[in-house]
Amino acid sequence: MDIVRRLREKRPLVHCITNYVTANDVANAILACGGSPVMADSPEEAAEITSAGDVLVLNTGTLSRDRAEAMMKSAEAAVRKGIPVILDPAGVGASEFRRAFVSRLLSAVRISVIRGNLSEICCVAGHHVREKGVDSSAEEKEDIVRTAALCAADRYRCLVTVTGAEDLVTDGSRIAVIRNGSPVMGKITGTGCMLSGILGAYAAAEEDLFFAAVSAAVSMGIAGEEAEARFGTVGTGSMRMGIIDALSRMDDEMLGKKGRVFLNVL
Amino acid sequence: MDIVRRLREKRPLVHCITNYVTANDVANAILACGGSPVMADSPEEAAEITSAGDVLVLNTGTLSRDRAEAMMKSAEAAVRKGIPVILDPAGVGASEFRRAFVSRLLSAVRISVIRGNLSEICCVAGHHVREKGVDSSAEEKEDIVRTAALCAADRYRCLVTVTGAEDLVTDGSRIAVIRNGSPVMGKITGTGCMLSGILGAYAAAEEDLFFAAVSAAVSMGIAGEEAEARFGTVGTGSMRMGIIDALSRMDDEMLGKKGRVFLNVL
Amino acid sequence: MDIVRRLREKRPLVHCITNYVTANDVANAILACGGSPVMADSPEEAAEITSAGDVLVLNTGTLSRDRAEAMMKSAEAAVRKGIPVILDPAGVGASEFRRAFVSRLLSAVRISVIRGNLSEICCVAGHHVREKGVDSSAEEKEDIVRTAALCAADRYRCLVTVTGAEDLVTDGSRIAVIRNGSPVMGKITGTGCMLSGILGAYAAAEEDLFFAAVSAAVSMGIAGEEAEARFGTVGTGSMRMGIIDALSRMDDEMLGKKGRVFLNVL
Repeated sequence: MDIVRRLREKRPLVHCITNYVTANDVANAILACGGSPVMADSPEEAAEITSAGDVLVLNTGTLSRDRAEAMMKSAEAAVRKGIPVILDPAGVGASEFRRAFVSRLLSAVRISVIRGNLSEICCVAGHHVREKGVDSSAEEKEDIVRTAALCAADRYRCLVTVTGAEDLVTDGSRIAVIRNGSPVMGKITGTGCMLSGILGAYAAAEEDLFFAAVSAAVSMGIAGEEAEARFGTVGTGSMRMGIIDALSRMDDEMLGKKGRVFLNVL
Repeated sequence: MDIVRRLREKRPLVHCITNYVTANDVANAILACGGSPVMADSPEEAAEITSAGDVLVLNTGTLSRDRAEAMMKSAEAAVRKGIPVILDPAGVGASEFRRAFVSRLLSAVRISVIRGNLSEICCVAGHHVREKGVDSSAEEKEDIVRTAALCAADRYRCLVTVTGAEDLVTDGSRIAVIRNGSPVMGKITGTGCMLSGILGAYAAAEEDLFFAAVSAAVSMGIAGEEAEARFGTVGTGSMRMGIIDALSRMDDEMLGKKGRVFLNVL
Repeated sequence: MDIVRRLREKRPLVHCITNYVTANDVANAILACGGSPVMADSPEEAAEITSAGDVLVLNTGTLSRDRAEAMMKSAEAAVRKGIPVILDPAGVGASEFRRAFVSRLLSAVRISVIRGNLSEICCVAGHHVREKGVDSSAEEKEDIVRTAALCAADRYRCLVTVTGAEDLVTDGSRIAVIRNGSPVMGKITGTGCMLSGILGAYAAAEEDLFFAAVSAAVSMGIAGEEAEARFGTVGTGSMRMGIIDALSRMDDEMLGKKGRVFLNVL
């Protein structure tokens, strides 16, 4: 249990092709947990930068023709080099343009980890889960999340992280449910993007991607809890800062002590 | 007087095509006041995203060919759907490219609200107000602002918000002067963009756009005052965070108590 | 010694064509030290905006075809107008695309100041300095930095600022070593970009570019120290805010008192 220490020692180069809305927070989150971020999204240079990196993180938040082209080239370069590729299909259900690109990317390249919220994972899995909304019980919700995650993991033979009130990580055979985090995180833009970014950093420091993805989700969740404890009644501007603060102070002891991980084998 | 409560209940989807410099603050400001922001500026998907939204906010801050094309398509989609369109002609006087685009947009599409500072509103109105600078009295300044706002409101048959030391909102027949805010807000980038963003959220929650625009301006002004009270002597980094904090704690009671609105009917 | 006062009085218009990752922090840093930032990177308008400005700052952080074209046009407009051009060759060694663009820019236009870290300055200078890494003594390191800076200053007949544990500023005949700053600054994205931005503001307020560059580096270093004193054990999210706070409170007295500048004439 020394993944945080190893990450901080290795200082992996995390190449992100991500949306401009939260790029600054993603870069600072990666730095805070020990990685070295490089954000570059031009088709002219993306593949070359990926080739020098330790991991690639793709986020479809403000997708454009150029960013899509850069992502495709970088993903191919990452596969050639044998480094992990994290896909955050941000808002994939929002437009045909995003759906088509994500589908094309997943057909062309083997993705290592997909990280999204329930509706994004359902969209990627081509799985039309009927959400029952407020009436569904906690158990029913957990079941919906599990089904969607397993479906996506099976379809793309990759690891899947679904984030929400609870987070779920699965590689198709193992399932971890993570009960960390704070509801206030939903009031700050980019907490999902930040998780995808630090997941990249963790994946570059740890060969077992399942353990890396669980550790990243726990880190982000604890950071949200710490921020809420300091600033929950102060406001969301302070919360945002508090999350980066907590990520920068994270260590393996805190991860072990405060992590609420529930493992399951299918 | 329950506009804040209704906004937080409705959680309207606010589609923003805005500059990348302040996009993060705009998204967090919209979340803080109860809206759900989606920032998407590719011509490939902008109109589709607008069609699923409750309001459209356009900001010309870092205009590009692609962003201009996306804004035009989205504005047309918004009009088709009958949702409000907020235009922030950021820096419109800075280049012929921006002037020509804003003019083309205003000719093609019926805009609901234009929000800008005095020089932007004058540029949009085609009204060359001669500012007297430091020598002009407060009364003379208020007169200049009022003339420019009425001129723009009349020309484009829309609501106009002019922000400055005092804010002014007019729909051509009613005028509200808002005496909230802090001079330190001018030392933080994006307070104008944030106001345009939350104005979008308010406009999606309240049919009377005049009331929505006044409420948004009052909210932003109070947020500036709250931030100044906490951090005025600390620095502008803290102020920026304090503004988002205050927006996230805003409620109708605070709006009623601290708002300094002076109404006028022409 | 009244450069800060003069900057705050003049309020120079600083046109930045910079990366989207840190654009918000750069704009807020420029505002904090008294400048007026305008970020515009479209080839359609960049040159026109430069022509109305007092200084141009170019940063290759997220270079794209369009940004490269805008930079070239703006640099030419700045030279025509006779205003300073600051070049931050961010990550220039990361791709052939960036190397070729920076080389083309430096051939086409006379740059006033280049600001980068050691590896960026070496790349620009075409000087392959062999870094000895952890084994090299402090003296050896200082020697490497000095050689690279002089080499770049000579080749492009411009002022060079190399930032690192110590900062070095040289115009080819004078050398200043600045021993301010905090190691925590390396854990926050954009401290280099912010320095380049405020260097632009200082260069627009002070004819002696050497003095302007030294003052900017000292300001940024002191801001890092102040932020570390307040937030060093709190976290990097707070540190980031603390840097902007300190820049906004900077005055000539603080610059004089806390600056640790060591001058040298060749």
